[in-house]
Amino acid sequence: MPKGLVVQKYGGSSVANVERIQKVAQRVISYHKKGFSLVVVVSALGDTTDELITLADKINSNPSEREMDMLLSTGEQISGALLAMAIHKLGSEAISFTGSQVGIITDSSHTRARIIKINTDKIKKELKKGKIVIIAGFQGVTLNQDITTLGRGGSDLTAVALAKELKAETCEIYTDVEGIFSTDPRIELKARKINKITYDEMLEMASLGAQIMQARSIEVAKKFNVPLHVRSSFTTKPGTMIIKEVKKMEDIAVSGITLNKNEAKITLCGLPDKPGVAVKLFKHLALASVSVDMIVQNVSHTRLTDISFTIAKGDCAKASKITKKVSGKIGANEILIDEDIARVSIIGVGMKSHHGVAAKMFGVMADNKINIEMISTSEISISCIIKKKFAETAVKKLHEAFGLNRG
Amino acid sequence: MPKGLVVQKYGGSSVANVERIQKVAQRVISYHKKGFSLVVVVSALGDTTDELITLADKINSNPSEREMDMLLSTGEQISGALLAMAIHKLGSEAISFTGSQVGIITDSSHTRARIIKINTDKIKKELKKGKIVIIAGFQGVTLNQDITTLGRGGSDLTAVALAKELKAETCEIYTDVEGIFSTDPRIELKARKINKITYDEMLEMASLGAQIMQARSIEVAKKFNVPLHVRSSFTTKPGTMIIKEVKKMEDIAVSGITLNKNEAKITLCGLPDKPGVAVKLFKHLALASVSVDMIVQNVSHTRLTDISFTIAKGDCAKASKITKKVSGKIGANEILIDEDIARVSIIGVGMKSHHGVAAKMFGVMADNKINIEMISTSEISISCIIKKKFAETAVKKLHEAFGLNRG
Repeated sequence: MPKGLVVQKYGGSSVANVERIQKVAQRVISYHKKGFSLVVVVSALGDTTDELITLADKINSNPSEREMDMLLSTGEQISGALLAMAIHKLGSEAISFTGSQVGIITDSSHTRARIIKINTDKIKKELKKGKIVIIAGFQGVTLNQDITTLGRGGSDLTAVALAKELKAETCEIYTDVEGIFSTDPRIELKARKINKITYDEMLEMASLGAQIMQARSIEVAKKFNVPLHVRSSFTTKPGTMIIKEVKKMEDIAVSGITLNKNEAKITLCGLPDKPGVAVKLFKHLALASVSVDMIVQNVSHTRLTDISFTIAKGDCAKASKITKKVSGKIGANEILIDEDIARVSIIGVGMKSHHGVAAKMFGVMADNKINIEMISTSEISISCIIKKKFAETAVKKLHEAFGLNRG
Repeated sequence: MPKGLVVQKYGGSSVANVERIQKVAQRVISYHKKGFSLVVVVSALGDTTDELITLADKINSNPSEREMDMLLSTGEQISGALLAMAIHKLGSEAISFTGSQVGIITDSSHTRARIIKINTDKIKKELKKGKIVIIAGFQGVTLNQDITTLGRGGSDLTAVALAKELKAETCEIYTDVEGIFSTDPRIELKARKINKITYDEMLEMASLGAQIMQARSIEVAKKFNVPLHVRSSFTTKPGTMIIKEVKKMEDIAVSGITLNKNEAKITLCGLPDKPGVAVKLFKHLALASVSVDMIVQNVSHTRLTDISFTIAKGDCAKASKITKKVSGKIGANEILIDEDIARVSIIGVGMKSHHGVAAKMFGVMADNKINIEMISTSEISISCIIKKKFAETAVKKLHEAFGLNRG
């Protein structure tokens, strides 16, 4: 009895070697035999992409983005072909396609292309023949036939976009963890797997440090209401469903806690407290493609003020240089750079209807003598910048305080 | 001052690692700066293709040929992108294309596809912009957009076909040897590099064991009169020109000597000497895709006869099995299998106008007490099957006798 269509995406760790590819083949076939139509999106094998990047870097540290896309897109093409062979070996029919072959049309922003449209004719034709259709993730093609890639984690986007276009029942994202956890289980053993979470919460978690899924793909899933199921390729247990609304979740103020240690903080001290000062600095940072995350300007009681902002650690050297250059012009009397920070965030749609969540968070910090250096909030999250050495303690204490501990 | 168009093909050993790719980039740019328009065809890096085949074999020992092509075509795509980056690094403009992108249209015989046509618009457009155009060798695409490959050594074919289509001045085949030698220099130190050789001689040498160029690509070069230049990517010395006619070569009866140790011989003894016996055997071998090379049927003085034939060593097990099965039906009383043979061949267009070349060859064998087990001739070659242990001696003595020694 024919069932609906499922799009499954297998990440690099799920297809890291021959044995794992064989396991994926078994899983795919078991679904297919249950009657589902199956479109399978694959990432590159394990560390292939990083190896290719290293190779390119040895040749040209500033490679053409078009040629990088030519280079990197081979990784997914290889895993697609190997998975097809593994499925054939087990007696089922499968066919693999590159993004280009199948008609994933993108703009020409190489290394971070955006999908414009997907021609699903070829996929539908093969599905009709009863074949499992395998698509190389992460890649597309311009109307001019240049190969493009969709940015890090782009295979998620391929899967979500295909699920939307093909009106799939579910888009399953297979990874090496069992789902989305209330916090990183490597930090807090009592972390619980979340059964259901909203797109918005997942988006916050992704942008605040949880590295399970590419943020852009969650945005697209939200926009088109594609049900996502994040689960492990090593077990058959259900993982986490990411959906529009989670009922009966109003009781829970906080769904998850994230930690990000990859930021640095820069502070300009003693700035004149007048309009137009900040804009000069951030304009120069933007021109240099430095993405600024949190910005805090302290309330001034003199006519001087301090501005602190955070950036990705990788951009710290560049940002420091620019800040120093600009600081003279805008009259800062000191610049402080701190790479020894961590961002701890609590996330939950329930925050909207619960009072005192922020106060509770700050209380936990105070009780544990953790100084909060910066605070930033969104509708469904609160983030604190603290000293890195307190990071794990903060996560554990917050996890307990907001009732997220298992059992 | 603009000069003509040159197609250069760099084999796997020429792009085996980062340093060699950089060297190729330098060479390509030096040509480009002299004013040539350049189309560069690349093979996969070093052993990439073999590594991918090994990987596929672990997953499925009898993989789908379509998926093999998806898998293997990535190798050339990688080297093309890396070479483009290396050229950019040195400040010149280059762009890489897959066979599919550039429009190398083939039939759908996966793993051994034949080129149907090449759309050169894209190449010409980029050449006009002054760019060095890099094309992934070995691959094409069907009209249905399936990726195909052209068989082992297929990058040679890509280069020759492009040279023909683009009306190139020369097609340069870069490899790890300095050109075509009068015989394998590893066997005979006195082997001479041949400056000029005809397509026909080169074809004979390729089919008789010289592994410099794919035979099919020489055939195509001959058909369309594409001048080939086989040379080393490690020196700037000229190599061997392969052309239609070599003047003043009529004096030379023999241009080269080849050795092939990869064959085995099967003999059916005591067959009834009547029509229709041989056809039964060879029909069965052909059905099993065993390619038979030399066939010799002895003159019979009784009413019984022997048939000997050679096949590639890799086919020996399969061929023996078939031969044993058929032998009963056709009345052979014994089957002899000999894997301990070698084929020594002399090649030269001069043979046509020289008498006594065969006699001289057989004389050399006799003088050195080497028994000849089978003989086969073409218009421009004579091959002898001898015991493998005599192979090197035969090559050296023939090389000397036909005046090929250096100095």
